[in-house]
Amino acid sequence: MNRLAKNVIDQLSRLLGKRCTANRVVCEQHGRDESRHEVAPPDVVCFVHSPEEVAAVLKICNRASFPVVPFGAGTNVEGQVCAIRGGASIDMSEMTAITRFSQADMDCTVQAGVTREQLNDYLRDTGLFFPIDPGANATIGGMAATNASGTTTVAYGSMKENVLALRVALPSGELINTASRARKSSAGYDLTRLFIGSEGTLGVITEVTLRLHGRTEAVSAARVCFSDIAEAIETVTSAMQSGIRFARIELLDATQIRAINRYSKTDYLEQATLFLEFHGSASGVAEQAGLFGVIAAEFGGSDWQWTANENERRQMWSARHHAAFATRAARPGCIAVATDVCVPLSHLAECIARTREDIETHWRWPFMLTAHIGDGNFHYVFLIDPDSEAEWSTYNALYERLVDRALGMSGTCTGEHGIGLGKRKYLPREFGESGAALMRAIKSAIDPNNIMNPGKIFEN
Amino acid sequence: MNRLAKNVIDQLSRLLGKRCTANRVVCEQHGRDESRHEVAPPDVVCFVHSPEEVAAVLKICNRASFPVVPFGAGTNVEGQVCAIRGGASIDMSEMTAITRFSQADMDCTVQAGVTREQLNDYLRDTGLFFPIDPGANATIGGMAATNASGTTTVAYGSMKENVLALRVALPSGELINTASRARKSSAGYDLTRLFIGSEGTLGVITEVTLRLHGRTEAVSAARVCFSDIAEAIETVTSAMQSGIRFARIELLDATQIRAINRYSKTDYLEQATLFLEFHGSASGVAEQAGLFGVIAAEFGGSDWQWTANENERRQMWSARHHAAFATRAARPGCIAVATDVCVPLSHLAECIARTREDIETHWRWPFMLTAHIGDGNFHYVFLIDPDSEAEWSTYNALYERLVDRALGMSGTCTGEHGIGLGKRKYLPREFGESGAALMRAIKSAIDPNNIMNPGKIFEN
Repeated sequence: MNRLAKNVIDQLSRLLGKRCTANRVVCEQHGRDESRHEVAPPDVVCFVHSPEEVAAVLKICNRASFPVVPFGAGTNVEGQVCAIRGGASIDMSEMTAITRFSQADMDCTVQAGVTREQLNDYLRDTGLFFPIDPGANATIGGMAATNASGTTTVAYGSMKENVLALRVALPSGELINTASRARKSSAGYDLTRLFIGSEGTLGVITEVTLRLHGRTEAVSAARVCFSDIAEAIETVTSAMQSGIRFARIELLDATQIRAINRYSKTDYLEQATLFLEFHGSASGVAEQAGLFGVIAAEFGGSDWQWTANENERRQMWSARHHAAFATRAARPGCIAVATDVCVPLSHLAECIARTREDIETHWRWPFMLTAHIGDGNFHYVFLIDPDSEAEWSTYNALYERLVDRALGMSGTCTGEHGIGLGKRKYLPREFGESGAALMRAIKSAIDPNNIMNPGKIFEN
Repeated sequence: MNRLAKNVIDQLSRLLGKRCTANRVVCEQHGRDESRHEVAPPDVVCFVHSPEEVAAVLKICNRASFPVVPFGAGTNVEGQVCAIRGGASIDMSEMTAITRFSQADMDCTVQAGVTREQLNDYLRDTGLFFPIDPGANATIGGMAATNASGTTTVAYGSMKENVLALRVALPSGELINTASRARKSSAGYDLTRLFIGSEGTLGVITEVTLRLHGRTEAVSAARVCFSDIAEAIETVTSAMQSGIRFARIELLDATQIRAINRYSKTDYLEQATLFLEFHGSASGVAEQAGLFGVIAAEFGGSDWQWTANENERRQMWSARHHAAFATRAARPGCIAVATDVCVPLSHLAECIARTREDIETHWRWPFMLTAHIGDGNFHYVFLIDPDSEAEWSTYNALYERLVDRALGMSGTCTGEHGIGLGKRKYLPREFGESGAALMRAIKSAIDPNNIMNPGKIFEN
């Protein structure tokens, strides 16, 4: 470690005492996420307790151009927390206060380290809930930083639609509020959405003000199978145009269902399967599901099941919830790597079909499909032997073609996982050199010393 | 005119021929909006026909640091189009092509000069519609540039929730696409939302890709009166928490109803009145309205009326639609000036009551209230004799206190009209000096020569 770094760490230690540590194990824990990306430990980890402490850490690091990597729950999957240039990892997980809750305004303000499960536990008896569900029990700060979305996004949007305001520590050590708590505003530039999805490259999100939603009177669930994925997509497209409102609509392919049957000892029909959820009044959820059932039958859907009973509903969705575990169990000793493109619905069937064809031609190992089908976002998940160079190289080539295919269909290289380390080269392909350069110019204006999560989103 | 300006205009004339004009009348038409702000004509008006032409105009102007002011329909109300430093007004109104429409994707791409009425006429037989309704028949480009919203925002959001992507000409003369057509993306910084609401200060929006919505099976309308505005607000708060979904919910105060009665020769009950609209299935809109009626009665609502009949519905809303004309007629020869703060619902009753008290103490002339109540956004509209210095000075003091009151209640100085010229000094009050400086830094990074609508949003 050079003298400059040592000097920074000395200052951080004076600020935080034992909450600043260079312990090797702790640093390695903070240099990895849930992805294939190599562990890249920071030089030091700072466990911060307040926005002001975050600001103070940034001020110290900025003076020395010392890299800073924000860390939430570490559940991201594109290497966002890997400290590829060393520096200080700012661990937000001890900032877990729910600092304000308003029933009347249906909003709350939480520190960045609050997890979504903690928040929903807190809200349990209020009649309100926070809908975004990326699967993992991520922190709200991390979810904002990566613009998390998931199964409910088709109805409730992503983090961009559910964050009213952020408190952010800038690299300069200043703390700003990106917006008021008003439900809408036309005052100045949208700093809130600029920081959402910026993956820690512009500043550290310390507090988040969230829009909450009322729990509806009733929730119903449904499931329907198709012999052909294209029929499932036509069903969804037609239902959306008819104005049917899903709370969730998820697709698993036949291979995925087969893996679930093996893993959970179930006997689901091994076909492409849609899982649905409806939120509304008791009569409303029955009506919406009924309409959907009729449309599904028109497009060849079979084995239609529907329930408004809570236990049956959980049962009906359990296959979907077991998908991740079942996938991993399909090839023991291997790691699951998920692609994440998102295309307009009109291109979805073709994009999936051509990708499947490409994979079947080149890949001899297990793979399966999960789709947030209402958004046009799908994940082909590959089970890869981490030590096989041949598998990685085949995967990388397939992946590259998949991204180009999605971009060629007016889609994006990442629907919800972010750019991180793994997709940096696709940024100029998606936005053109001018668009990517514009983002880089914004980054330089806000973080001139490039201390904030350097090497993420942009290649340099 | 100096030699530099003359040289720029020569270049623009060579590019556009007669579509570049310094005609005095045309320039004056382009230097005014629908507000109280003084006419400030540009030196020249450019009627552009393509994104590439816009880019070429910007390139010429940027080389000479010549100001550029984008112009749509001129229906903005905060002086956004006033060319306070002269320069070139870029008139987008001849770029009226609907360049792409996809039924399956429920989206379309339009040139910036398409108006919202033109778009909805085009969509009439598709079963889809574009919901944002700011009242005026604004251009879609202008609506994006000012983050327009309006009566349907409580259900469908503002422009930020309904624009998928923009094509933007940067000051450098480059054209970029801010996003793909995917329904969601976590790729890089949110350039789309950065340009939405930037009021022409960062670049010129040349094309807009919009999310469309399915027309629902049924639409119903309702109206209910309250002797006290606070009761109306409690009703709305309670209904929102119960998960009732309004398509629109608007409030007019008793003075406004009285003005409408005089103007339209109607005999509406002269009380604070809520106007509602519900979108959904036939049974759904009846159910939602019925639930709302019960809640309204609990909080003292009277004269409840409901209909699902189209003619009756138009009739029921006609008072609301006549509000703007009735307001102006209430004091002939005077101009209507609207305030535009937006606060969390829990503060709305107090904010309105204290503002009303303040106005009644100091203002002896007509004023009335319109509120997009579900969003917490309200407009006290003042009828001002434009030649009376006393009235202006009283108004300005009231306005200043209103903004400070709203900011003190976690609100914003502008819910939907924007900063423009009139609210520049409130930007640092709302975001702090650091927040406003951050916006300024972004502006400088994108528009280093400060050619884009200079003097708007920021005071310098």
